[in-house]
Amino acid sequence: MIPEGGSDLAAVSNASPIGVFDSGLGGLTVLRSLHRRLPCEDIIYFGDTARVPYGTKGENTVRAFARQDAGLLVDKGVKVVVVACNTASAFALEYLRSALPVPVLGVIEPGVAAALEATRGGVVGVIGTSGTIRSGRYQDGLRVGGLSDDQIMAVECPLFVPLVEEDKMGQTLMQLAVQEYLQPLRDTGVDTLILGCTHYPLLKDDIGAFMGPNTTLVDSADMLAEAAALLLSEEKLLRGQPSARQGELEFYLSDLPWKFSQIGERFLGRPIADATIVGLDEMEAAGIKHKGENP
Amino acid sequence: MIPEGGSDLAAVSNASPIGVFDSGLGGLTVLRSLHRRLPCEDIIYFGDTARVPYGTKGENTVRAFARQDAGLLVDKGVKVVVVACNTASAFALEYLRSALPVPVLGVIEPGVAAALEATRGGVVGVIGTSGTIRSGRYQDGLRVGGLSDDQIMAVECPLFVPLVEEDKMGQTLMQLAVQEYLQPLRDTGVDTLILGCTHYPLLKDDIGAFMGPNTTLVDSADMLAEAAALLLSEEKLLRGQPSARQGELEFYLSDLPWKFSQIGERFLGRPIADATIVGLDEMEAAGIKHKGENP
Repeated sequence: MIPEGGSDLAAVSNASPIGVFDSGLGGLTVLRSLHRRLPCEDIIYFGDTARVPYGTKGENTVRAFARQDAGLLVDKGVKVVVVACNTASAFALEYLRSALPVPVLGVIEPGVAAALEATRGGVVGVIGTSGTIRSGRYQDGLRVGGLSDDQIMAVECPLFVPLVEEDKMGQTLMQLAVQEYLQPLRDTGVDTLILGCTHYPLLKDDIGAFMGPNTTLVDSADMLAEAAALLLSEEKLLRGQPSARQGELEFYLSDLPWKFSQIGERFLGRPIADATIVGLDEMEAAGIKHKGENP
Repeated sequence: MIPEGGSDLAAVSNASPIGVFDSGLGGLTVLRSLHRRLPCEDIIYFGDTARVPYGTKGENTVRAFARQDAGLLVDKGVKVVVVACNTASAFALEYLRSALPVPVLGVIEPGVAAALEATRGGVVGVIGTSGTIRSGRYQDGLRVGGLSDDQIMAVECPLFVPLVEEDKMGQTLMQLAVQEYLQPLRDTGVDTLILGCTHYPLLKDDIGAFMGPNTTLVDSADMLAEAAALLLSEEKLLRGQPSARQGELEFYLSDLPWKFSQIGERFLGRPIADATIVGLDEMEAAGIKHKGENP
């Protein structure tokens, strides 16, 4: 059991846990990369399964949800907040950075950096939810990184999330959806494709088979784990040497969905032993007590 | 503008509006039937677009959401609450009936009644979200109505909602999903099929083409409108003669989704002129003030 704290800059130490939140269970792919990269760190995961998905919802709503999600983690004494959800990273990262007393990492910056490193001078594609793509954050990041508008191609793929949750990987339904969404990207010959949603790493085989070997797929989860390791090192908040201990994982969810165990295992790669359900009342009370106004 | 009241048995009158809530925009199919059947009634619609969908989520979560949704309508002085969402009807109807100061109607009872009337002695099928089907409420109703277990066949169709929201009606993706979910129902030769989700009326053509002319499709929206008319008549709460006036429709949503106007028009059959967004804070404050404990 990770002791409960209530983060502020003074109270957190390198022994404090890392906090990760996501709109649901997709962020377990990020947790998995983080745990692999930083095996001795304790990690608290919060999945907002009661209000998932975020990708179809408006900016104000996503920011208000993210505020509660992050507030819940801060209340539990985390030393850093990792926003695993692309849509929440797109709409709430700047707000959370201004409001939280601990550093905040999102998935978009590491994804952009990885794509800029991978591209061979051609076109970079990015796929994600409607919210993520319409926010323009990935596109902005690629432009700041030196790409022209002609070198950026962004496509919403709203059916990928439900298809992954229904375990349609490798099936005709998924292949049809992949073709429908990715045909323009293949026709353009993108050399790099950012998988801009926590669910999409599970689609690597389907997407890779369709796009062919000349397209590099960028999964921001690994890049995010690398960024987290660097940040903790810079802030002198690393727990210790990987050999020292095995970090504990704790899971909190706002709802226990009907297919929790199957979906959870699919994203994490192993069963989730135990998850604590956070009631609606507790979610509503979770807040950013330290500074910052309502989003 | 419908005047704001705050319902209790004393304050509501036959001039008070009807309240309808749904997990999102699908319930607009129910609103449409209600408005057609009771054209002189004012109707307030609340769609919980911030937390949609309900169909994948657990019983406690759906009940807690339904409590706030219905509370919001009661705060606005409605004379009756219509639960348009099948999943909320499955998990929260009894609770709402015990807690609310006004009559409450759900979609399941009218759907069961219509199916019992339509069946020709064969097997009745019911399709819906995971929550609705796993609740067993439709199956219970059909059993109470005299069917044996062999005469009931229930199937979860979790991909239908996202496919309808993405406007895939009549397309290959939808036809494949229809085949995958409904093949067992067609093989069994169900003579009647309950469309147990507000989104499914939009699938009538796809489902009808696959099931063939010998299967009667039961859309509970029309039956629910009939039940509402009967209830209001019995309670002497009908507004007046249809010829007297044209009822006003008011729309409240907890989020303005990215594809609001397209999806809204698809379900309602015409554009929604104006919708008021109810913030997270207001949702949390909406409650059942009159009686009843937390669900």
